[in-house]
Order: sequence, then C-alpha cells, then structure tokens
Amino acid sequence: MGNDMDEASVVEQVAAILKERGLTVSVAEACTSGLIASKLTSVSGSSRYFIGGVLAYANEVKEGVLGVPKGVMVMEGSVSPVTAREMAKGARCLIGTNLAIAATGVMGPTGGTRTKPVGLFFVAVAGDDIDVCVERRFSGDRGANRESASDAAIELLRDVLLGNGLESEIPVRA
Amino acid sequence: MGNDMDEASVVEQVAAILKERGLTVSVAEACTSGLIASKLTSVSGSSRYFIGGVLAYANEVKEGVLGVPKGVMVMEGSVSPVTAREMAKGARCLIGTNLAIAATGVMGPTGGTRTKPVGLFFVAVAGDDIDVCVERRFSGDRGANRESASDAAIELLRDVLLGNGLESEIPVRA
Repeated sequence: MGNDMDEASVVEQVAAILKERGLTVSVAEACTSGLIASKLTSVSGSSRYFIGGVLAYANEVKEGVLGVPKGVMVMEGSVSPVTAREMAKGARCLIGTNLAIAATGVMGPTGGTRTKPVGLFFVAVAGDDIDVCVERRFSGDRGANRESASDAAIELLRDVLLGNGLESEIPVRA
Repeated sequence: MGNDMDEASVVEQVAAILKERGLTVSVAEACTSGLIASKLTSVSGSSRYFIGGVLAYANEVKEGVLGVPKGVMVMEGSVSPVTAREMAKGARCLIGTNLAIAATGVMGPTGGTRTKPVGLFFVAVAGDDIDVCVERRFSGDRGANRESASDAAIELLRDVLLGNGLESEIPVRA
C-alpha cells in the first residue's frame, strides 16, 4: 500500500499537469469501483480536469455501457489487458475526454483462479495516440489491494503525462 | 465525519439485506465521485448486489449519460433535490438495477453560493415505488464533507431498505 503523503503528491502532480495543459480525464473502473475517481477529485478545483466516468463492476456494464465486445471478455476474460484497453476507449468516447483510465483486476479474497490469481491487476490509459496498459500484482488483503490498484492507476496516468514511455510494457496486438 | 467502525457496520448491514432479498444497486455520483460505490464494494461478495454506476461530475454527464433534463439543472441547479432524483432514476434505468443511489452537493472549499452553501448535500434513492430524497448540511473541510456525504448516502439506502419512511422529508413535486 502506498504512502499516503506520496500518493497525495502524485494526485497533486497529475492535477497540476492536467490543468496546465487543459486536458480532461474520465475513468472506467471495475475492481477499484470509484477509488481512482475519488482520489482524482480529492483536491479542490478537480472539476477543471475530471469530467466523470463509469463504474463497470458487472460485465453487462462493461459491454452495454462501455462497449467492450462480449467476445473479448469470453476469450480473454474481464480481467485482461484487452478488456482494460477497451474499457478505457469506451469511457473516453462516452464521457468525451482527452484521456481515460480503466482498471480491472481480482482484489480478493475470492474470485482468483490459477491463471488469474488474487492480486492481478491491469490498468490502461487511452488518449489521442495513447494506448497504454500495464500489469501489476498485489499481495495484500482486499482493502490493501484496492488502495494499491487505485494508486497504481494514478501513477500510470502521471507516467503517461510525463512521457515515460510505458507503451511497450504490454504491446498492443494488431 | 462518521465513525469508521460504525460506517463499516452500516455497509455490512446494507450488504446483508441486499443479498438476502436478492436486490441489486447502482450509483450516480457527482460530488462524492466514487466514494459511495467504493464503500458499497469494500466487502467481499459485493458483486452479488453492486452492478455499476455513473460518475457525473460535469453537468454534461448528468444530462448526456444519465438523462437529467438540462432545464431541470438550469431552473433548480445541479445541486437540488430534483436533480438528485433524476440522477437516481437515470442510473437505475441505464445500469438496470432494483435500486439506485444518487448524490449531488457542494463539498468546498470553493463553489458555494448564498443559496447553495458549501456543505449542502442531497442524496436520493430510486426504486420500484421508491423515490426518496433527503438534504444534509456538513460543516467540515472538503475531505470530511465527502466522507460524511458518502456515509449519509449509504445510511439513506439502509433506512429505505428497513422501511424507515423517509419519503416525506423532501416531498415529490407533481
């Protein structure tokens, strides 16, 4: 779990960059279920960059509201890089923002499988010419995993904004 | 700000009732921006009752995604009982749940006016034959107000589930 002071400064850093560049952001959250958005809006003035988002806990919401193809979730699973990417694209399109963050994972204590264990997490950022997804694995309890996942999501957004070149960590499939 | 232990048990109480009755819930969050949903999903097994929701920070999302009539927000304001009610109905319809909770308010430190001061908060619950809205006023800082608001939302859901008859606190206008 991240240090509260450090994480607060990551949010402030992201907020400053978004405001300076006049960029807007939305979220598509599955396993974190609002934690990413609540952190992005914890600072005053967040309405200048945060527009809204979709909490897609059930797969029906990922498909029906965000437009993630059902076949993608059947073939790859709802916890997969391709689902995270499609969720981000769907939120960006629906909410109409420059950037979107999407999060999907297995936070536990139940729901893990051999190939998708508890703690597995994917976060994606979509934008003009931006299609980034990274994998993280956490080993805490449900609460700690959700905190770590939402912190990792905001850290990815910061890295993308700073041009830290994470695009290749999970390559886009043609 | 609520006591953490107390609030955790309100969530557990709500979760137990929803599971026992086989009811599902969605959210439409403006000022709380994910905090209600993150609390509702803090307990394991929450996918049995929590389906998803919409974070409608900007009025364009309240209108375009949740279907709150623009005229309602122009006439009554985005922080008003009627907007809260329309947000709840919109989320319930879009996500397809038995119940929906909606939250709108002024969390501060900026954004307050003489008629809509910082700390003013409306929470609505919609369901079959349920159209409840209550007003709360908080006097903390932004973080404390957001915590209090999300706790109040979950407490309203509990009261509705327990049939505590809050329907008349802010009467529905014909």
